[in-house]
Amino acid sequence: MLQSELFTKTLRTAPKDEQSVNAQLLIRAGYIHKQMAGAYAYLPLGLKVIEKIKNIVREEMNAIGGQELLMTSLQRKELWERTDRWDDKKVDIWFKSQLKNGNEVGLAWSHEEPITEMMTAYINSYRDLPVYIYQFQTKLRNELRAKSGILRGREFLMKDLYSYSISKEAHEEFYNKAIQAYHKVFERTGLGDSTFLTFASGGAFTQFSHEFQTLSETGEDVIYLHRGKKLAINKEVLTDEVMAQLGVKRSELEEVKGSEVGNIFSFGSTKSEQLGLYFKDESGAQRPVILGSYGIGISRLLGVIVEKFHDEKGIIWPRAVSPFDVHLINIAENTAQADKLYKALQLSGISVLYDQRDVSVGVKLTDSDLLGIPKRALVSDKTLKEDSVELKSRNESKTKLIAIKDMMANARSHLQ
Amino acid sequence: MLQSELFTKTLRTAPKDEQSVNAQLLIRAGYIHKQMAGAYAYLPLGLKVIEKIKNIVREEMNAIGGQELLMTSLQRKELWERTDRWDDKKVDIWFKSQLKNGNEVGLAWSHEEPITEMMTAYINSYRDLPVYIYQFQTKLRNELRAKSGILRGREFLMKDLYSYSISKEAHEEFYNKAIQAYHKVFERTGLGDSTFLTFASGGAFTQFSHEFQTLSETGEDVIYLHRGKKLAINKEVLTDEVMAQLGVKRSELEEVKGSEVGNIFSFGSTKSEQLGLYFKDESGAQRPVILGSYGIGISRLLGVIVEKFHDEKGIIWPRAVSPFDVHLINIAENTAQADKLYKALQLSGISVLYDQRDVSVGVKLTDSDLLGIPKRALVSDKTLKEDSVELKSRNESKTKLIAIKDMMANARSHLQ
Repeated sequence: MLQSELFTKTLRTAPKDEQSVNAQLLIRAGYIHKQMAGAYAYLPLGLKVIEKIKNIVREEMNAIGGQELLMTSLQRKELWERTDRWDDKKVDIWFKSQLKNGNEVGLAWSHEEPITEMMTAYINSYRDLPVYIYQFQTKLRNELRAKSGILRGREFLMKDLYSYSISKEAHEEFYNKAIQAYHKVFERTGLGDSTFLTFASGGAFTQFSHEFQTLSETGEDVIYLHRGKKLAINKEVLTDEVMAQLGVKRSELEEVKGSEVGNIFSFGSTKSEQLGLYFKDESGAQRPVILGSYGIGISRLLGVIVEKFHDEKGIIWPRAVSPFDVHLINIAENTAQADKLYKALQLSGISVLYDQRDVSVGVKLTDSDLLGIPKRALVSDKTLKEDSVELKSRNESKTKLIAIKDMMANARSHLQ
Repeated sequence: MLQSELFTKTLRTAPKDEQSVNAQLLIRAGYIHKQMAGAYAYLPLGLKVIEKIKNIVREEMNAIGGQELLMTSLQRKELWERTDRWDDKKVDIWFKSQLKNGNEVGLAWSHEEPITEMMTAYINSYRDLPVYIYQFQTKLRNELRAKSGILRGREFLMKDLYSYSISKEAHEEFYNKAIQAYHKVFERTGLGDSTFLTFASGGAFTQFSHEFQTLSETGEDVIYLHRGKKLAINKEVLTDEVMAQLGVKRSELEEVKGSEVGNIFSFGSTKSEQLGLYFKDESGAQRPVILGSYGIGISRLLGVIVEKFHDEKGIIWPRAVSPFDVHLINIAENTAQADKLYKALQLSGISVLYDQRDVSVGVKLTDSDLLGIPKRALVSDKTLKEDSVELKSRNESKTKLIAIKDMMANARSHLQ
């Protein structure tokens, strides 16, 4: 698209009350806009990145048999009372409101209860199992203090998947598949090398739950990392027993900071029993369904990516989640060659942000670094003397002259 | 996809408390699930239809220069106080909640206020105009009685576009473009012939606002239709003066029932003045921006389509919004030919729901009629004797035998 058509503008400075790097850069570059503490609107560029992340997650969830649906934000008090999670003393991040008749309703901070209760309409027999369902949903959590930009919001976007399995064994098999799918998601979004499966405390049903922690200096969690085994242990379960069980020694572990980008959890049969989700097994006996839940914070992932991939000039998007493949900038007197290249690249199926604005070279280059598109193609009077375009990666300083004809013919390989 | 993989099941009867045809059929067929009065989850099939509708709307909004973004559900009280729309006596459908510090927050029932206030960060000069932005957002409205299924929910999905224009003339030009874009949306979703531009009461700024009303026996509104001129007048503005102005006579108008599927409205400069959205014109003078708002109820559209297109057996989807292009059903002893056809159709880029379940022929055909996919391809021992498949349109009773080879080679034309 033409950069002149974007209604957003880059800002030289971030709002004073915004201390996190992720929100500062995303606001300055025009990806998000703060509505109130902990609640951010996604502007056109930000929504593009969000949709790219969602599509990666969607593909990996579909690949393990997930079916996408969309639950409601309004939730019935009665369901959460059955599992003893309505009381503000038990769950302290509820937003609640009232219907006209005075009945209280909850605003979704999670969906295990309504989704599990809903499944009583569809799961009756062992033949109906397994079921894997997921959604991308806005969650509302009434945090005492919303900080860390989009890493911990009062309103945020989450992918939550729920597995309904016939037995503990079947559950574990899927649980391990989900771990692999999560690794693929983080690999594809550029966080593969820095994201580690982390053992955290489980519940009544299993010894551990699992988190996916991305190493980050601004991370909120302290974890103990074993680089050789590519696993980490959350502080809360760092005991001699656990270390022995995982075959690691304390001396091999590094204390590092992490941002939690995903978590998976076994509920066993507890919630199914509380909410009445039973199935008839092959012998005709009634048994509770085994439930697992699998979250990825979509907007948090966006924030973590920015925390990991930026420099003093701005954002540096991993290719797979960049809002555009290439940032084409014309600073030549005559725009004809850049215009032609813009059209040719689009015809090759490459997404281009084209800066043909009537502003200074300095503004264009500064904006480009702030926006963070991984490849920059610059057309200037100097490059045109050689019928060329200057290609530069956002994370490298070296540039490369490429003949415009060659760029048009082999755009994909040049933009790798 | 394989029908056996769908976790949803068709139901012979709808919930007793559900009186509307749209919700009855959508629930029975497994498209939606009721969470509470006025709040429905979209199950995998329902979400597919919703996404198809959204994509049609998205294409038409992009075609008139719209840029997609996503606002938040949490809203600041202070913004709505400035326009005098916070008080429950002024706006009686608010859901409100409280932050931990006791401050009230609103849950979005509309977005004019926050989106207009946000634009003060991006619009300062005539050079920044016009701006057309839109979103698909969940709206929450605290209706006293939620009825009519998904036609009037407490939680529903809406497309809302906002236009920011430099002058009344520029505003009107876009307003008319939006009318044409809306006609295209309703045309493409199958409602073109039965949806009419309807003159309704305006506000301080303009004499009229405009609704798009789809003729429907279950519609909530009474409108006066002039078939020849393809326009309608809402009861509230049916005066001699208005009829004279529109060049119609009372005797030419039919009193009919309609469901409002879209509306467009001019706010003039009122909200911009209340919220401080001004721009510098070419002479350097400060002027308020002219605002228009343009809504389409996405989930309501889904409901209206079902109200319009169904028979006693179930839903009959218009092709463009059907969850699948074709419903392939095998009732032959040997599934090999149907399996082969399933794969071939998918390779041709056709979306297929394939019923190879081990259930009776009667159940398969009844389910198929209920689900409402516009084309049904039936493979039976009888059709296989002629190496054929039986093709039937959901809205016709006649069937047609087509050689399986021909179907594979020319699927697209056969499924027109």
